[in-house]
Amino acid sequence: MTSRLSLNPALQTLPVYQPGRPIEEVAREVGLPASDIIKLASNENPLGPSPAALAAMQRVLSNLHLYPDGNAFYLKQKLAEKLGVETGNVILGNGSNEIIEFVGHAMMGPGVDVVVSQYCFAIYPIMAKLFGANVISVPARDYGHDLPAMLKAIKPNTRVMFVANPNNPTGTLASREDVVNLINQVPDHVLLVMDEAYIEFLPEPVDLLPLIRRGQKPNLLLMRTFSKIFGLAGLRLGYGIAQPELITALEKVRQPFNINSIAQAGALAALDDAEHMSKTRQNNAQGLQFLEHAFRQLGWEFVPSSANFVLVKVGEGQRVFNDLQKLGVIVRPMGGYQLPEWIRISVGTAQENSRCLASLKQVLSQKCE
Amino acid sequence: MTSRLSLNPALQTLPVYQPGRPIEEVAREVGLPASDIIKLASNENPLGPSPAALAAMQRVLSNLHLYPDGNAFYLKQKLAEKLGVETGNVILGNGSNEIIEFVGHAMMGPGVDVVVSQYCFAIYPIMAKLFGANVISVPARDYGHDLPAMLKAIKPNTRVMFVANPNNPTGTLASREDVVNLINQVPDHVLLVMDEAYIEFLPEPVDLLPLIRRGQKPNLLLMRTFSKIFGLAGLRLGYGIAQPELITALEKVRQPFNINSIAQAGALAALDDAEHMSKTRQNNAQGLQFLEHAFRQLGWEFVPSSANFVLVKVGEGQRVFNDLQKLGVIVRPMGGYQLPEWIRISVGTAQENSRCLASLKQVLSQKCE
Repeated sequence: MTSRLSLNPALQTLPVYQPGRPIEEVAREVGLPASDIIKLASNENPLGPSPAALAAMQRVLSNLHLYPDGNAFYLKQKLAEKLGVETGNVILGNGSNEIIEFVGHAMMGPGVDVVVSQYCFAIYPIMAKLFGANVISVPARDYGHDLPAMLKAIKPNTRVMFVANPNNPTGTLASREDVVNLINQVPDHVLLVMDEAYIEFLPEPVDLLPLIRRGQKPNLLLMRTFSKIFGLAGLRLGYGIAQPELITALEKVRQPFNINSIAQAGALAALDDAEHMSKTRQNNAQGLQFLEHAFRQLGWEFVPSSANFVLVKVGEGQRVFNDLQKLGVIVRPMGGYQLPEWIRISVGTAQENSRCLASLKQVLSQKCE
Repeated sequence: MTSRLSLNPALQTLPVYQPGRPIEEVAREVGLPASDIIKLASNENPLGPSPAALAAMQRVLSNLHLYPDGNAFYLKQKLAEKLGVETGNVILGNGSNEIIEFVGHAMMGPGVDVVVSQYCFAIYPIMAKLFGANVISVPARDYGHDLPAMLKAIKPNTRVMFVANPNNPTGTLASREDVVNLINQVPDHVLLVMDEAYIEFLPEPVDLLPLIRRGQKPNLLLMRTFSKIFGLAGLRLGYGIAQPELITALEKVRQPFNINSIAQAGALAALDDAEHMSKTRQNNAQGLQFLEHAFRQLGWEFVPSSANFVLVKVGEGQRVFNDLQKLGVIVRPMGGYQLPEWIRISVGTAQENSRCLASLKQVLSQKCE
């Protein structure tokens, strides 16, 4: 029996996001025990959740029959304190993905332009298309955002521009000068969304929080997440930082209980665990150095990374991804990002990085035989 | 500095959902310790989460640095097995609220009618308005849905109809005959969403799953939740059941990681904990009987309930709610539901019900003095 329901037309052409494959799924498929598989596919924290977060989550389990605090009072207070802003400057999402959807609800629609960069995070154009907006994709410069060209792509009907810095999936970082120019020159009618999901991995990030503190830039939204350096991707928690007027608008489209109680408890504790963050940063710097050094030695082209993953050119990305998977190593093929010759490898522990590199050598040498 | 951003016009008139107040928030406000406060405001399970769910959640905490399985393989398999349907008949949401939002993305927009009942769950009209649809609210019959009148309200541009059975916030149950007629007569072009959030509390529910199993009714979507009898409201997990064609459409607008990992683990275990469910059902039947018997004795008007809460007429609902709160008892005022003379009391443990009743007597007698 076929449905006679009228579905919104955007659904027909909507692209589908291809996530990193879960360990259990690959285990079922390749017939290996889950414990023998390593996942370096989704830029997660290889050291696991912060021990402080684990203890805090433990404590709230028995209260999970109660709805979450819809205003996340304690978490927002702590976040605001850490960021040096007011709680009215902060909104929480079920992952940063949901913050992007809030922006869609508030500002996108048919006839509206949304400007992104080539090789940008896949959810930006998916959300824009879901809301019927036009996606203007500006060609990349050295695999990164070409910020001056993105500024030039703005038209009167442009409402939103997404810039990830560092960028996922390429790991590129825009120069301080380019970022400052972008902030100064973006017109008032365009919401500039700066996705800072990986900012905590930078030794000297361009700090845009002073603009928020001083009440400037009502058209600037910073996005951050607990899924990367904080090691809490399984909980789903991202946040946006902006002037109260914009936050109030986005709050209107937020579902009352979008942030689960465990996420609130875990994130609250993780924010105070400076030691875990510092260990994570150190592990990442060493791992990135190890991988990039090896790629250089082997003469493999890669994009120097400012984040917790690295893009490396392997020829047939999908074939290499499949072969690595059979060896119990999950990485990310990049065909969906118009980069079919590349794979993206998340930085793991020292042991995981070595195993990944050895497996990659094996897979690539098989090709040559 | 005022924003020059153009916000979508729906935001200006969008109503704001008023949730049940969290214990911690009331504790801060009235100056009582949180442990002295009881919350009978959000139809939660007073027995807490299932012990099996607690144990399962415990086991996954240390893996929360990994993204959730976006397809929720094990949970969907178990759910399908329990319901006697295929996994392709099931979609998961960050609470049922998100399933309602999926319906909005897929089917609502300007010029579209969405039919609801007076005194319906507040999120239905909020979502309809968010997507710019017209809300057609059909007057209630004895505080419940008037299903024949709702059928008559359908027009060519009606796309969605929401029916909650039992209904929240009134606790009313539509007759089997009315439900069967509704299912048989709803036109093919209208999606009928049957919200069955409280169905597990019914001794003999009208079972609509056979329609799904037999591949019938492509315009029927059943909604259920882990927030009520399963005692997992803090995790955020609801689900929809429908024919694969509709599920596929709704899946397109679902964010890839909308269901957190703890929710997947907890719900999977809770589904097998028949003992907790049975205890919850028994506690609820006894508590409801206790409250309704007392109201009858006291001559207080109430709406006989088929769910885990009861609506009782107290005169000045907001005043009574405030006064109860000062005594450490949180109930739900009903002004936002056009029922300003009523409050809604969730069934608690025997002890909580007694305390609530005693406090309510005290508050109402103060009025008469």
